[in-house]
Amino acid sequence: MNKIALAQINPIAGNIKFNSQKIIDCIKDAKQNGADMIIFPELALMGYPFGDIFIRHKSIITRQLKALEEITAQTSGITALVGFAEPTCDADKKPFYNSVAVMQNGKIINIARKRLLPNYSEFNDYRYFEPSKETPKIFELNGEKYGILVCEDSFNDKSFFKDDAIYSIDPVEELMRQNPDTLINCSCSPSRCAKEFIKNSLFSSIAKKYGVNYIYVNQVGYADNLSFDGTSRIYDKSGKLVLRAKTFEEDFVITSDLNGEINTLPTGMDKEIKPEEFSTEYKNDLDRTYKSIMFGIKEYFRKNGFKKAVLGLSGGLDSSICAVLLADALGKDNIWGISMPSRITSKESKDDAKILAENLGINFLEIPLADAIDPLKNMLNSAFKIIKTDKYEKSTTIENLQARLRATLLWSISNEHKQMLPIATSDKSEAYIGYATVNGDMSGGFAPIADVTKTKLFALGRFLNENRAQKNAIPQAVLEKPPGAELKINPKTGKTICAEEENMPYEFLDEIIWFVENKGYGFEDLLNHNFYYEKNHPITLEEKTEWINKFFRKSQFAVYKWHILPPSVVIDMHSINSVEYRQPIISCIN
Amino acid sequence: MNKIALAQINPIAGNIKFNSQKIIDCIKDAKQNGADMIIFPELALMGYPFGDIFIRHKSIITRQLKALEEITAQTSGITALVGFAEPTCDADKKPFYNSVAVMQNGKIINIARKRLLPNYSEFNDYRYFEPSKETPKIFELNGEKYGILVCEDSFNDKSFFKDDAIYSIDPVEELMRQNPDTLINCSCSPSRCAKEFIKNSLFSSIAKKYGVNYIYVNQVGYADNLSFDGTSRIYDKSGKLVLRAKTFEEDFVITSDLNGEINTLPTGMDKEIKPEEFSTEYKNDLDRTYKSIMFGIKEYFRKNGFKKAVLGLSGGLDSSICAVLLADALGKDNIWGISMPSRITSKESKDDAKILAENLGINFLEIPLADAIDPLKNMLNSAFKIIKTDKYEKSTTIENLQARLRATLLWSISNEHKQMLPIATSDKSEAYIGYATVNGDMSGGFAPIADVTKTKLFALGRFLNENRAQKNAIPQAVLEKPPGAELKINPKTGKTICAEEENMPYEFLDEIIWFVENKGYGFEDLLNHNFYYEKNHPITLEEKTEWINKFFRKSQFAVYKWHILPPSVVIDMHSINSVEYRQPIISCIN
Repeated sequence: MNKIALAQINPIAGNIKFNSQKIIDCIKDAKQNGADMIIFPELALMGYPFGDIFIRHKSIITRQLKALEEITAQTSGITALVGFAEPTCDADKKPFYNSVAVMQNGKIINIARKRLLPNYSEFNDYRYFEPSKETPKIFELNGEKYGILVCEDSFNDKSFFKDDAIYSIDPVEELMRQNPDTLINCSCSPSRCAKEFIKNSLFSSIAKKYGVNYIYVNQVGYADNLSFDGTSRIYDKSGKLVLRAKTFEEDFVITSDLNGEINTLPTGMDKEIKPEEFSTEYKNDLDRTYKSIMFGIKEYFRKNGFKKAVLGLSGGLDSSICAVLLADALGKDNIWGISMPSRITSKESKDDAKILAENLGINFLEIPLADAIDPLKNMLNSAFKIIKTDKYEKSTTIENLQARLRATLLWSISNEHKQMLPIATSDKSEAYIGYATVNGDMSGGFAPIADVTKTKLFALGRFLNENRAQKNAIPQAVLEKPPGAELKINPKTGKTICAEEENMPYEFLDEIIWFVENKGYGFEDLLNHNFYYEKNHPITLEEKTEWINKFFRKSQFAVYKWHILPPSVVIDMHSINSVEYRQPIISCIN
Repeated sequence: MNKIALAQINPIAGNIKFNSQKIIDCIKDAKQNGADMIIFPELALMGYPFGDIFIRHKSIITRQLKALEEITAQTSGITALVGFAEPTCDADKKPFYNSVAVMQNGKIINIARKRLLPNYSEFNDYRYFEPSKETPKIFELNGEKYGILVCEDSFNDKSFFKDDAIYSIDPVEELMRQNPDTLINCSCSPSRCAKEFIKNSLFSSIAKKYGVNYIYVNQVGYADNLSFDGTSRIYDKSGKLVLRAKTFEEDFVITSDLNGEINTLPTGMDKEIKPEEFSTEYKNDLDRTYKSIMFGIKEYFRKNGFKKAVLGLSGGLDSSICAVLLADALGKDNIWGISMPSRITSKESKDDAKILAENLGINFLEIPLADAIDPLKNMLNSAFKIIKTDKYEKSTTIENLQARLRATLLWSISNEHKQMLPIATSDKSEAYIGYATVNGDMSGGFAPIADVTKTKLFALGRFLNENRAQKNAIPQAVLEKPPGAELKINPKTGKTICAEEENMPYEFLDEIIWFVENKGYGFEDLLNHNFYYEKNHPITLEEKTEWINKFFRKSQFAVYKWHILPPSVVIDMHSINSVEYRQPIISCIN
């Protein structure tokens, strides 16, 4: 049996020098360890996603081909499979094939070209790649026969996907006609909710169905809002998982008998998530959520040359969760939590912010806003004597002013410190309906929880308090009080207005979001849907109608804000992140 | 000869009710005028671009088909060509064909499906559409034979494009085998630099080559950063332009002999722009630039329900040009220009801002910043005693603070007024290299000049002063002084630092941008390029190398800012607008 190395690397799109050096280093390692073959992910040399960069910076293409030659020269005594963007050199075709070169003893002996090109959600393969019409030839190494698939090529098994199969051909079926002993799948497969469940079931069923070994090598890394989890693995001919590389880490695994360590996954990552089981408890999805965001933060900061983060601590849920995630991802000493109370901030909130910072051991500072709010209010007051307004004091102006002043201070602090990014603490529920302030909580260099809904954040908070080494870092009150930005007083109650008063219960909102994103539910579908929330909270048809209407009205108006959200991490099956969902600002969904 | 109506309409993507009513109204008008046939643009019923909205809001598809039936029922006694998204109803295919239905006497008698799908720049047809493999059948009306093309179908004439033809088939050639008397091209063709030159030459040459009448009906409107100019037209069999509808306006033209009024174009819109003629004078492109942006502003505001704009007036070039454009697009009474001087703002700048506002007759207000800057400085000073910084006073913190405070005031003012948007005044040159402040001049509900370089803005300023009814609205000093945000004092000179001191001459920068965008020039190409700037300003190789290096270094770091630029209007052949150019934040171009 051949000794095989799985090189689960983390390339940078367009950085040919960096990527090729990494590939060459891995090949050397593999050779030193006596490997017969080394396998790299899809597009390992170019890095993925690379977007349009090659159009404006054409030299990337020639540099990639030169690097491919240099890598080929390193393959004496070893076989290497390296993903690259292969120019089609045909004006009638898209610029590239998405190819895997099989190199051996200084020569390219085979090229496998991707056949199925995904073009949905975050994928835009058709913009860049020409689909190959031919089944790649299998290759032999020491009597063993190998067939190559490139990512999506493995995702059209008709006995698995049944009516959801979206392509007419099944490259696996066609490849298997050449009777390989082993299938190799080179991938750049982004991680998200329930994806691992599909991959595991699918790959295992293919291995079993055809009685073939199945090796999957996936890119690891974060780019353009997507996290690639790695988690490369091998299934034997019975479909049994026999080796699994690390998740959210580079890894380099060598196996001489297609067996090895099975690294553990984030808890629940491999579970299925079904619409009929929707609840706001998010069981099984919290560890994955936590680790995906941590990985996204680490990667974004590292790849952009940042080390520190500064964020506002309001004593509320969003900023508390962000602080924990940042402290865990970047180290507590690198985090500055700034409490910026205004006159209407409660003592409880101030205390909660401080306690959280102390619990986490992050740097903490309180900057009361009043000294700056008052002159600004005066400036606006005199302005509004000239620019007449009839809604002042009833409007959101002063609320937003507070939020924007806070962001201004955070950006000022980050300006002053090298390698420090300000953090946008907006969550998904609020971003969805535009209940987030432009240049305020929506503003920052990175938005860690922009794809996590409010009810999931509550669940995540409880999970973090229970499961981190340091228990109960988030004050209990933060997890119990109704969310609200403490920006405005309700004149009737004299208390600050909570968000649910202005919008609708988060449990209800988050369920709307789930069914719109995952099932394409429209107004009528939602009206007929039996909400989880309704089980314990009887609501009238009028209320239900009003909330659903409000959702569509507010989310239509919020599209502008979706377009200027800072970079984030796609966590759910779907999102409002423009890398994944594209709604023009001028468009109508009713 | 048939009497034909060209319905150059302005639909809204996804608003089936609005679009179908508009289509039905036009059909009624055409019938009342005795027309035999009425032609609508590509995707007239769905509106374009519609992005992913049908994925989350599936009911749009059924509503569109129902509306198509209702429209069909209106076609007694007339033939109507209506573009729509035709579901393929085949899991193996993309969701839609991009089709034109030919309706007659209450029935659909023919469907033409788009064959060539563009997938470059702003186009993403392959994400949504299945390319048709068949040549549409021609149809007859009162003895005249018509063949239908859908936009890109007409853009692969090999004698015209020669080596630049990017598809193997030419749908025009194939369609002409059926000997139609007239070709009808239903389009959604976005307007941009030099595009009209290509369209005019191409359509004319096709008409002449085949001896066929050529009717082009284009969508008009603005959506998702793109402006569609309309400018529908007819060429006779000799290739002569014999009718042209209005530009940047809805129009409804009826012709009984394929002849009619030839409306004038914005000056220079139909001129070619060649790399070898690059200069920073932008001859022939200023009237088009002015009218494209005006149209974009009008459309964006109207379609989003806004009427008024508020912007900061610094007395500098960017804000002055924006004020003129806004006043002309929305009416002077709807514009508020706010001068927000800090302590280092010169009297000249303050005066220039005021004079401009008076000249334009827009509303004007001065809000000095000092009262708010001082407490904020104090807050930051005390903060920095705790969060140690060694670069304070040497940093950009206080400069940026001024810019952010200005944006905060503008957003506050817009918050207080219904239908008022704050304006981001960033220009293209500065956005390119990241010389624009997040939450500062980069922030707003709309960015009118984000695709206009600085040297072009100078030219545009001179053009506006000469060509608007009201001469010299922009004070001469604004067009003469070196650009700079007046945010910082140069300790050596005691004067505010101008932007070119910190970056490089704008003439040089803008030429780099032009050749990177249009020719894909890399570092070496630029170093070998003979800059227009060098003709009159001898520079050393060291300077040249340093500037080119600086451009790549700064623009790499600016990609984050490109991703959060507010909506704008694509003006140049290429841009950094993410609707048109996609560069992941984590990517490398060196």
